[in-house]
Amino acid sequence: MSLLVVGSIAFDSVETPFGKVEDALGGSAVYISVSSSYFSPPIRMVAVVGGDFPREHIRFLENHEIDLDGLQIVETGKTFRWGGRYHYDLNSRDSLYTELNVFKDFKPNIPDRFRGSAYVCLGNMDPILQRDVLAQVSKPRLVVGDTMNYWIESSPDELRKTLKVMDVIVVNDSEARLLTQEPNLIKAAKSIIDMGPSIVIIKKGEHGALLVTSDTIFSAPAYPLETIFDPTGAGDSFAGGFVGWLAKTDDLSPANLKRAVIYGSTLASFCVEKFSIDGLRDLSYFQIQDRYRSFMQLSKFDEGYD
Amino acid sequence: MSLLVVGSIAFDSVETPFGKVEDALGGSAVYISVSSSYFSPPIRMVAVVGGDFPREHIRFLENHEIDLDGLQIVETGKTFRWGGRYHYDLNSRDSLYTELNVFKDFKPNIPDRFRGSAYVCLGNMDPILQRDVLAQVSKPRLVVGDTMNYWIESSPDELRKTLKVMDVIVVNDSEARLLTQEPNLIKAAKSIIDMGPSIVIIKKGEHGALLVTSDTIFSAPAYPLETIFDPTGAGDSFAGGFVGWLAKTDDLSPANLKRAVIYGSTLASFCVEKFSIDGLRDLSYFQIQDRYRSFMQLSKFDEGYD
Repeated sequence: MSLLVVGSIAFDSVETPFGKVEDALGGSAVYISVSSSYFSPPIRMVAVVGGDFPREHIRFLENHEIDLDGLQIVETGKTFRWGGRYHYDLNSRDSLYTELNVFKDFKPNIPDRFRGSAYVCLGNMDPILQRDVLAQVSKPRLVVGDTMNYWIESSPDELRKTLKVMDVIVVNDSEARLLTQEPNLIKAAKSIIDMGPSIVIIKKGEHGALLVTSDTIFSAPAYPLETIFDPTGAGDSFAGGFVGWLAKTDDLSPANLKRAVIYGSTLASFCVEKFSIDGLRDLSYFQIQDRYRSFMQLSKFDEGYD
Repeated sequence: MSLLVVGSIAFDSVETPFGKVEDALGGSAVYISVSSSYFSPPIRMVAVVGGDFPREHIRFLENHEIDLDGLQIVETGKTFRWGGRYHYDLNSRDSLYTELNVFKDFKPNIPDRFRGSAYVCLGNMDPILQRDVLAQVSKPRLVVGDTMNYWIESSPDELRKTLKVMDVIVVNDSEARLLTQEPNLIKAAKSIIDMGPSIVIIKKGEHGALLVTSDTIFSAPAYPLETIFDPTGAGDSFAGGFVGWLAKTDDLSPANLKRAVIYGSTLASFCVEKFSIDGLRDLSYFQIQDRYRSFMQLSKFDEGYD
């Protein structure tokens, strides 16, 4: 089924204990689209870049069967830039600078032929823009959205309105707690369901992810990587793998939602193994299936009673 | 197979956001023995109490088929007492007081008929005492041990010597990181394996547990409790369920180690649902199996490829 992805494109400069990159291709729309392209190409992307966006990145996205008809190129502007440094344990980071540039005035304009998309994935951005996207598409089968601490704190009312029109919200554990003021993650997830989304996914980094619906709780393990080179984009890769699998299979049963969480975890695990999006550049479907099976091995156990 | 448990017996006074108890029965030997008693009774306990230890607690332990021939009663002394207060999120606590009393001079004296025990579980205590226990038993099939931050920081050399004679070490994530100075838990576990134990279990509280051996990594989910009344004893209940299942089945295969981790998680989940050891008082084998199956449901997913 068709999948529309709306989010940011950025030049990321990232420093981790293992090295650094300057002005690498990043942004939520990139990570989500590239990850989901392994499952349900072509991916319909809507985003904005400046006149400084190099031709090689365009080619890279096109090679991943990402349909760029919705890519706005503001020739006189500069692409969004972000710089960050991860701490020793990789669980926290400092933003060194955020230059929104053309993303500051981004107005998602959904091309006519994208407006019937069955699946929609909204990267982290102003909740008003997220609703603006949904106002332009007609009755999608599933809307998956992301948000972050910034919007939870600065635009709580707008975020509440947007949550009412999302089917799936993907947040990390600290965002779930901040949004609900509830330290227990299961209670936090149920409280978010009361706000609108029928499916809540809480990403817990090195501890895996939780899927919570009104009648299902699924705990997915994290892939046991000994070296995480760069956590940037892990959450978006998760969202891309998750929604990409669902768009491919068009099956929203609990069993398939669980598979989608594992595909999300799979893409996130590839993402963090290299800097920037390098971990997602040249995956084969075999590699993806192989890691999916590793996730099964990691968490499988059999009946223990006599 | 026979199981020997050596550790502390205490009167715990605990305050959580949900209430408090005064001078409730606690201590590592109690939690480990009661938990393991559901699998491989009778449990051989070696511990010390003062003359103030009430007859009702003796009866309670005996009713759980805990063999108290190794219980030292120092009539002129007082039982170990601990007081603590848990924070709002239940992930951290302050010790309000620690009165070691008779536990200060505890010398584990293993009764002759316990010296051939096949399985040995050493609760958190001075690593010198842990080795002292092992010097009195003849070639146990499996030695499971616990420790804590206090010993890692104050007695690193003695702890290193004890680790060399343990087969399984059960620690929490912060202890694993402190012991190895390694933030990545998989690397930390492998580093602990290099110190001696062939099996490392890292408890992660609300995030479940990891089992790591030289050739297996198993990620166990946490039971999704919405209300945790009192985390006291969760780690010891885990150890008791784990070693109790292994002593019952006498099977150290990777598949059975995984089951043991789930039984450990099962007993810990019952423990934290009520104050003190009340959650472990009257479990039926059916209740335990039922929760074991819930753990399967929680983490099970099937093949996702075409």
